[in-house]
Amino acid sequence: MRFTAAELGKLLNGVVEGNPDVTVSELAKIEEGTTGSLSFLANPKYAPHLYTTNASIVIVNKDLVLTDEVKSTLIRVDDAYSAFSILLEKYNSIKQNKSGIEQPSYIGQSATVGDNLYLGAFAYIGNNAKIGNNVKIYPQAYVGDNVKIGDNSVIFAGVKIYADCVVGSNVTIHSGTVIGSDGFGFAPQADGTYAKVAQIGNVIIEDNVEIGANTTIDRATMGSTIIGKGVKMDNLIQIAHNVELGANTVIAAQAGVSGSTKVGENCVIAGQVGIVGHITIAKGSQFGAQSGVHRTISEENKKWNGSPIDPYINSLKTIQVLSRLPELERKVYELDKALKASKENK
Amino acid sequence: MRFTAAELGKLLNGVVEGNPDVTVSELAKIEEGTTGSLSFLANPKYAPHLYTTNASIVIVNKDLVLTDEVKSTLIRVDDAYSAFSILLEKYNSIKQNKSGIEQPSYIGQSATVGDNLYLGAFAYIGNNAKIGNNVKIYPQAYVGDNVKIGDNSVIFAGVKIYADCVVGSNVTIHSGTVIGSDGFGFAPQADGTYAKVAQIGNVIIEDNVEIGANTTIDRATMGSTIIGKGVKMDNLIQIAHNVELGANTVIAAQAGVSGSTKVGENCVIAGQVGIVGHITIAKGSQFGAQSGVHRTISEENKKWNGSPIDPYINSLKTIQVLSRLPELERKVYELDKALKASKENK
Amino acid sequence: MRFTAAELGKLLNGVVEGNPDVTVSELAKIEEGTTGSLSFLANPKYAPHLYTTNASIVIVNKDLVLTDEVKSTLIRVDDAYSAFSILLEKYNSIKQNKSGIEQPSYIGQSATVGDNLYLGAFAYIGNNAKIGNNVKIYPQAYVGDNVKIGDNSVIFAGVKIYADCVVGSNVTIHSGTVIGSDGFGFAPQADGTYAKVAQIGNVIIEDNVEIGANTTIDRATMGSTIIGKGVKMDNLIQIAHNVELGANTVIAAQAGVSGSTKVGENCVIAGQVGIVGHITIAKGSQFGAQSGVHRTISEENKKWNGSPIDPYINSLKTIQVLSRLPELERKVYELDKALKASKENK
Repeated sequence: MRFTAAELGKLLNGVVEGNPDVTVSELAKIEEGTTGSLSFLANPKYAPHLYTTNASIVIVNKDLVLTDEVKSTLIRVDDAYSAFSILLEKYNSIKQNKSGIEQPSYIGQSATVGDNLYLGAFAYIGNNAKIGNNVKIYPQAYVGDNVKIGDNSVIFAGVKIYADCVVGSNVTIHSGTVIGSDGFGFAPQADGTYAKVAQIGNVIIEDNVEIGANTTIDRATMGSTIIGKGVKMDNLIQIAHNVELGANTVIAAQAGVSGSTKVGENCVIAGQVGIVGHITIAKGSQFGAQSGVHRTISEENKKWNGSPIDPYINSLKTIQVLSRLPELERKVYELDKALKASKENK
Repeated sequence: MRFTAAELGKLLNGVVEGNPDVTVSELAKIEEGTTGSLSFLANPKYAPHLYTTNASIVIVNKDLVLTDEVKSTLIRVDDAYSAFSILLEKYNSIKQNKSGIEQPSYIGQSATVGDNLYLGAFAYIGNNAKIGNNVKIYPQAYVGDNVKIGDNSVIFAGVKIYADCVVGSNVTIHSGTVIGSDGFGFAPQADGTYAKVAQIGNVIIEDNVEIGANTTIDRATMGSTIIGKGVKMDNLIQIAHNVELGANTVIAAQAGVSGSTKVGENCVIAGQVGIVGHITIAKGSQFGAQSGVHRTISEENKKWNGSPIDPYINSLKTIQVLSRLPELERKVYELDKALKASKENK
Repeated sequence: MRFTAAELGKLLNGVVEGNPDVTVSELAKIEEGTTGSLSFLANPKYAPHLYTTNASIVIVNKDLVLTDEVKSTLIRVDDAYSAFSILLEKYNSIKQNKSGIEQPSYIGQSATVGDNLYLGAFAYIGNNAKIGNNVKIYPQAYVGDNVKIGDNSVIFAGVKIYADCVVGSNVTIHSGTVIGSDGFGFAPQADGTYAKVAQIGNVIIEDNVEIGANTTIDRATMGSTIIGKGVKMDNLIQIAHNVELGANTVIAAQAGVSGSTKVGENCVIAGQVGIVGHITIAKGSQFGAQSGVHRTISEENKKWNGSPIDPYINSLKTIQVLSRLPELERKVYELDKALKASKENK
């Protein structure tokens, strides 16, 4: 892919300043730009790089005032960051433009697949599975019996989706993620052993969800574990059986949500947070990294931190005192001594 | 699968109350029951749903006293929860009744497999592996050279079992779990680099163990990492080299046990707990979520919490004071001032 | 493999004491040694086992003074631990001596592979990938388009390497690890949804790196996520987009490093540590297990602990006071009462 400044200017509805015929074939950060690369300047902090970069083309905001000479051809647009994001997206979709069915791959009986499927080698589609249009299933992915996958979804290499789960449209699931493994349900027996509680539910992943790598989402005991519309999940996250995540909730890496907990919409859960089971989290709740969420939260849109959680501001205050704790203890025992001494002196 | 109330009543040794000819073909929670579904009522909290549910059949305890009219056919049994669990198990085993060898799959030289094997497409069995009877190895699973797997075990899609490991009978391992990867052993060198310490041991998983998805169990440096009989492990757990887990110990998601630690029987380790290496944990120990276990525990059957751990009750008290810590500090400095003032007043 | 004591003595440049013709075919810990096994004694703590072990041969330090009779043949060497490590390494490399191309496997167009490749069944090499000499790619591993892998690297079963990533020489990556999945980048929109920020960078893994099982390393938004030369990583670790790890840094299981953070050389990061994004960690920094690293660290070679981190010694002091915190609070309120009483008494 090689573009001229003139072509990009037209595509981005921008104004070209400099040589319109210069061409670029790759993307780079402004401070790492080389001849043939396209960059952008949005954050004023990086403005000095504009005068030293070797990028052939730089996308800038239209109101940018130059304070020195610039080697690069500029393309002035309304919003440099958005314009660049559009290009990134386009670049990415061209790169991921896989199609066709590689061999050997496996499609079970009565499975149906839509138009324009990419099925990588060693990928597996189980019996009665229903795959929508424009779906990409990368090599070594596993789609169990009766699974449904909506249009335009991308299942990366080695994803495992157990039987009966439902994946919506425009969903992306990254490598190594497991959808629909058994929930962790065992009933203690009198002799100290545990009896398995069968897990016959499934997982429903709604539209526009993205899930990172090596994350695990267990199927419900009965009913469904539900990942709401537009949820974004990072890598190595644990979602237990019968959890429900509200629309547009975001979860960072290595966090975990225990069984039957309902998380509201538009929550933000930072890395390594743990949330206990059987509670309800109000919409718009935010949790700092490594928090331990041990109780239902009913107030919406509040920030929390700590293990166990405290309101965010309280938690910060506690943390500040913590590092002075040894000193505080010493002080208390000095006071104790001083008080006793003062009594004896009377 | 479609059953009449009469058939189920006979199967569960129960008494049918209502239409014995009504049929069900699926399972549902009582509050979500629809025509054609079978549900149960065990927890009195859910009793009100009995009078509104659309489930065609509900399994109830034999001594249940009705307080209103019921649409569903009831099956009265000694213990509704147990009866339903039996049905769930049956339903599940029918669903998982895979058999036969799908192609392409790979069976190495001198490997032996028992009767009634299910080998999914793209599954791999290494040289000299020994697979028992009624084993299911799902697609894309990897069973390395010399691995032994006992009767009735289920290896789900994409599990990886390195060479020389031993898996017992009636073991279930969920997708993405890795058994027998190298222990994390590196010897620091004078120049700041690290030299690999070869990891030549294996992993032994005893009978009746269940392991969740994307968990990792490292092989021993020498000897064996041992997962005792009846252990139940959740997803994304880390078990380091030479760890031994006692029989019937239960570990929740994202917990980790460091190298050479011995965990006793019947312990309960909650989510995101970390246990350091080279210690011994007495049998029956229990750890709260996110605990950090930093030392050997010799007393049996005690509950612990916190990072680092404290006896459970102490930990709860500490936690309560923590959120009052800023206030406590303020108080101490007020006292200090008051005491000084009182001295000056003398 | 069967060796006589004489052969081993020659190989290790040691002195044989006892029957030089006795043979061994396996390795064992000294306390578990059986006839036909080779063991070693390095740690004086284990010396008593020397007089009871059934190991046929034991490697010992040349200056060891015997205090009782020994059944085993001894091989005296300069350093028993090093000598045994050499043997372990040799044993391991013989065991892993896989070669050849198993079928079915997949090699894409224009991909090039070096001499002496092992390619396991159901492994996938994408278009234009470049694989060096003596590389082992185990079954069901995925090497995306344009990926480069250097000489002597080992990619275990089921590893997934996304397109465009670069793996150096002498690198080992264990099963289930994902390299190059998308970074977690989403821009919040006015309507509460999130727009994907395309992730067009890659991951570069330098020479002599070892990575454990089920770890995830995300590709950079632009540029590269970099794992420096000689880094050793354990299982289930999360490395976010644009992170850079300095040479010879060691990271234990279940730790996580957030986006754009730069970790210096020779750092030691213990298990379950979390490091926030966009910070810099000075070389030689060490973090205790479960630490939360919330800020840039500029001083080199310091030890830290706690969440959030404190200097190591401070953290230990704080932890000690923590378990006395309820008592401390009680004391403060007693003092308060006593002081008030003393005032009233005046």
